[in-house]
Parts: sequence; structure tokens; C-alpha cells
Amino acid sequence: MELMDAINTRRAIRRIKSDPISEDALNTVLTAIQMTPSWANTQCWEVVAVRDQAVKEQLAETLPAGNPALKAMVQAPVVLVMCGKRGLAGFKKGKTTTDKGDWFMFDVGAATQNASLAAHALGLGSVVVGLFDAAKAGEIVGVPDQVSVVAFLPLGYPERVPTAPKRKDLKEFVCENHYER
Amino acid sequence: MELMDAINTRRAIRRIKSDPISEDALNTVLTAIQMTPSWANTQCWEVVAVRDQAVKEQLAETLPAGNPALKAMVQAPVVLVMCGKRGLAGFKKGKTTTDKGDWFMFDVGAATQNASLAAHALGLGSVVVGLFDAAKAGEIVGVPDQVSVVAFLPLGYPERVPTAPKRKDLKEFVCENHYER
Repeated sequence: MELMDAINTRRAIRRIKSDPISEDALNTVLTAIQMTPSWANTQCWEVVAVRDQAVKEQLAETLPAGNPALKAMVQAPVVLVMCGKRGLAGFKKGKTTTDKGDWFMFDVGAATQNASLAAHALGLGSVVVGLFDAAKAGEIVGVPDQVSVVAFLPLGYPERVPTAPKRKDLKEFVCENHYER
Repeated sequence: MELMDAINTRRAIRRIKSDPISEDALNTVLTAIQMTPSWANTQCWEVVAVRDQAVKEQLAETLPAGNPALKAMVQAPVVLVMCGKRGLAGFKKGKTTTDKGDWFMFDVGAATQNASLAAHALGLGSVVVGLFDAAKAGEIVGVPDQVSVVAFLPLGYPERVPTAPKRKDLKEFVCENHYER
């Protein structure tokens, strides 16, 4: 799939079939994460690829009741738990270097976008889930203290592809040389 | 360009020619930002596209002396100032909903990755610059209080394409079902 087609036609897929996905397809998605640029090449992302149904169900319980991605969490053959190791991105000699503090959210955001695009080009659907109890999710998959669970990315063949949500026009978020609204 | 080729062959380009880029090319990069998924479709990114040489030079002065991206900041025909509007991503009814607080870094990170990939597919180079005085940069482009300057993305034709920095093997950042290192 052409890059701009992938960017333009990717949708958040919340209805995912339980059909398995191949090892090769999963590896391509993981390679897309691996190739993401990162702060001083620190590559702070950590990924737990969950295929175990019991673990997926436990993770689904960390979402608020009625969340539209709940079904995807238990039905998708794989849920990627996207994590960030703190204290790497945005740091120099153990100290933060910008007003953003730890930069892991930026790098994990970029890696998650690469994963979503790679999945889409393979005919797979995914949806970024950010609203859940991250501390509980961390206990379930057993991440150490310095690792934060950031997002879930359920992954599988789409059951239904929704229409695109409305986007801002370019002129609503772009300005030239100086900020003006 | 095929999606996975774009992901695998994109490099951080710090040596950028001063040759102009077309309005069409810039619009394609901005469209890639527009199409990025975001927290509840809040689209918190704001972009200042800087072509004015004096503004580029002022922004370059917010980088630490000796930064390898300094030349790209003044030489690139366009520098995208990637900003995030706070108080949207990660919020519900004015309150944060996760342990990450404001989620703008994740969404701006994803948008910046889309922009880098779109640029690369057009034959353009870019580099994500995160290390600079963001408060000073905000004054220069005149962002309001609720908008944070996150990163610069100088954009133009590559003068030199470097080799890829070494990446972790998949097994160094991926685990199955539970976190184990």
C-alpha cells in the first residue's frame, strides 16, 4: 500500500474478528515499531504482545464500563500493550532537558502510529486505547516500576470499517511564520 | 512509496538543501498531520509553518550550541513548529482521565511521525528536533498560554542521507503475554 493511501485510509477499528493473524504479520508490525525514530535513539518503547485470552480479558477489565473498544480488547487475536521506559527519552546524564519532562509519550505515540499504519497496510485493523487504569494494567502484565503502560493496540482483521471522523481543515490548525487564530 | 519501505528507509536528515519545496508537497505533509488519529478526535496539534528566514534564525538560537540539527534549522526552506494545545487530549469534562495527565505529547508524536513519513515519500528529508528552549520558541512564534511548542521539523531536500542508527532487536523490546527482561 502506498504511504499516503495508508495514512488517509487508516481508521480506528473497534470491531475486530477473532481470526488469528500470522507470525509474519505480527513481526511486520513490530518491525514498524522498531524503526520509529526516537529521542537520541533511546528507543524507550517496550511491547507486551498478548495472545493469551485470560490476560486479554483481565486487561479489558481495566477499561471503563461501556468503552467502545471493550469488545476489541477481548475479541482481537493479539493486543499490543504499548509501554514506555521512563528516564531515557528527554534525559541527559539522568536529568530532563526540556519543559516536557520525560519525553516517552512522544516516542511511544510515534511508535504506535507506525504500528497502526503497518497493520493497516497488511489489511489488519487496530485502535489506540488510552483510557484505562494503567496502574492495574501494569500489574496484570507485570511491568517493573520504571516502565509505564501507555496504550493498548488490539490488532486483527476488521469486522466493520467505520467512516472517518471529521477532521479540522488545514487552515484551522496551520499558520504561517507566526501563530494566529 | 510503499508504506513499509517508507518506514524502513526514513532517516533523520540533518543536512538539508536550501532549495524551496512546492506548495503541493507542503500540503501533502500537512494532510498527513491532519489524518493522524487522536484522543477522542480532539486533534490537539497546531502547526506553524515557518519559511521566513529571520524567524528560522531566531528559532535556531533556542537550540543548545553545537546541536547537530542547527544547520538544518536555518538551511531548510520550511521549518514546521509542531505544537500541542493543552487541556484537550486525555481530558473529559475539563479533568484528566489517566495517570499521564495531558496526553498531547502522544498525539503530537504520532502527528510528527506521519509528517516525517509523508515527507520521506515525497523525497524530502526531515529531522525531529526536541532539544531547545520551548518557552523562548513559543515567544518567537507567538503561541498563546494554552499551546506548548513541542518539536521543530525542518523540511527540505536531503543533502546527505546518513546510515541508520543501530536498533534494538525485537526480542530486546517485545515480550509475550507478560513482561520479562
